[in-house]
Amino acid sequence: MNQYCGRFITFEGGEGVGKSTNIRFVAEWLQQQGVDVLVTREPGGTDIAETIRNQLLKAHHQETMSDMTELLLVFAARAQHLEALIKPALAQGQWVLCDRFTDSTIAYQGFGRGLSLELIQQLKTLVQQQLEPDCTFWLDAPVSVGMARARGRAATAGEAIDRFETEQQAFFERVYRGFAQLAASESRFRRIDASVSLDQVQSALLAALTPLLPELS
Amino acid sequence: MNQYCGRFITFEGGEGVGKSTNIRFVAEWLQQQGVDVLVTREPGGTDIAETIRNQLLKAHHQETMSDMTELLLVFAARAQHLEALIKPALAQGQWVLCDRFTDSTIAYQGFGRGLSLELIQQLKTLVQQQLEPDCTFWLDAPVSVGMARARGRAATAGEAIDRFETEQQAFFERVYRGFAQLAASESRFRRIDASVSLDQVQSALLAALTPLLPELS
Ligand SMILES: Nc1ncnc2c1ncn2[C@@H]1O[C@H](COP(=O)(O)OP(=O)(O)O)[C@@H](O)[C@H]1O
Ligand SMILES: Nc1ncnc2c1ncn2[C@@H]1O[C@H](COP(=O)(O)OP(=O)(O)O)[C@@H](O)[C@H]1O
Ligand SMILES: [Mg+2]
Ligand SMILES: [Mg+2]
Repeated sequence: MNQYCGRFITFEGGEGVGKSTNIRFVAEWLQQQGVDVLVTREPGGTDIAETIRNQLLKAHHQETMSDMTELLLVFAARAQHLEALIKPALAQGQWVLCDRFTDSTIAYQGFGRGLSLELIQQLKTLVQQQLEPDCTFWLDAPVSVGMARARGRAATAGEAIDRFETEQQAFFERVYRGFAQLAASESRFRRIDASVSLDQVQSALLAALTPLLPELS
Repeated sequence: MNQYCGRFITFEGGEGVGKSTNIRFVAEWLQQQGVDVLVTREPGGTDIAETIRNQLLKAHHQETMSDMTELLLVFAARAQHLEALIKPALAQGQWVLCDRFTDSTIAYQGFGRGLSLELIQQLKTLVQQQLEPDCTFWLDAPVSVGMARARGRAATAGEAIDRFETEQQAFFERVYRGFAQLAASESRFRRIDASVSLDQVQSALLAALTPLLPELS
């Protein structure tokens, strides 16, 4: 339980597993229970942090962004998001639902790119201090399932793929193992089978959320 | 002595003390001695790092940038500058002359803004590891002298001067004490009296540089 009135819930998992779809679903359901909800995402969430996000996702043709630069930009955006949006919202009693947070940094930059987990942990402590999500939903689906869904979404929406989406299958398998290890070691994690139909995923989310409501509120 | 073939020399001090003027002078003199020189600056020095610099210097009207965000962006730009420009140049045997470096972060963000020196030191270690400048010229002039020169330069060049006027005298006095403390504790510092005429400053720089040449090269 964090030190604020509101609750902080994060949605994690690989590409296309259904984070954005289900965060909207959970937000609507919580609103129906009378909860004041703020939905946000990482990297980003404020003007300054979204500018940093754009710099992270943009392909730099002349220059390769170093891993350390990428990591510091991720945490610079997170520091801004926490100070300017998340903490003030929690302090006012809003529940904050966030599409990705530090667990994605551990999975992508740590397990995926091979950056030092200790270094990520140091930056996490600098930026978050004692604040952790109260609950993290890990939407768990095989890499191939998420990729197929993400490709379907991109085709429908006519989206371009970003710097992360150009990575190879092996990268995403390492990211998957990162989430699996976090789920095994962090008690705030709730694993949700996301390989099944959307209806089934949403039933599982409500089943996981309902018993949390009295505990969380 | 760093682990590369080239030497790494930084120019530090407050506003208007003569860093940019004298870095060009030293670069020309070193070139005359047959040294291959690269002149660069912080924050910035590469496309990605200059984009971060612009974000740092830009006024955000709707949103206040948090101190932690500012510090992480400074080090993100520095990590990029080191990996993409400084280290490759040093490895090729170039001498790198840099207009401001981490000592400015300690003086401005640490002593000036009051951010934790321990936190800055942690980030410095993460980003620089064992790499330090071989020699740091501290151009030492009273705050009032530097401010008068900066105002003169701004008037001549038709520059906006608001960055000097937004911070108070007391801020720059704290920055000054930061450089003075670094000069007292870091053996790589060479204090140059920058309150005297440009000719005298440049003689002092050459006098400090000449005995370093055999040691440095
Ligand atoms: N359980 C599911 N079964 C089938 N398709 C799904 C499921 N969950 C999400 N989708 C679809 O997969 C695509 C990716 O979902 P999205 O929520 O954008 O994933 P993410 O935000 O995790 O990348 C979307 O087109 C979405 O409608
Ligand atoms: N020793 C000096 N005496 C008088 N004017 C100087 C001296 N050194 C520099 N200047 C002038 O002061 C102004 C600021 O110098 P500059 O090199 O731009 O300082 P900085 O880069 O440290 O802000 C310039 O107009 C420069 O010509
Ligand atoms: Mg999404
Ligand atoms: Mg200058």
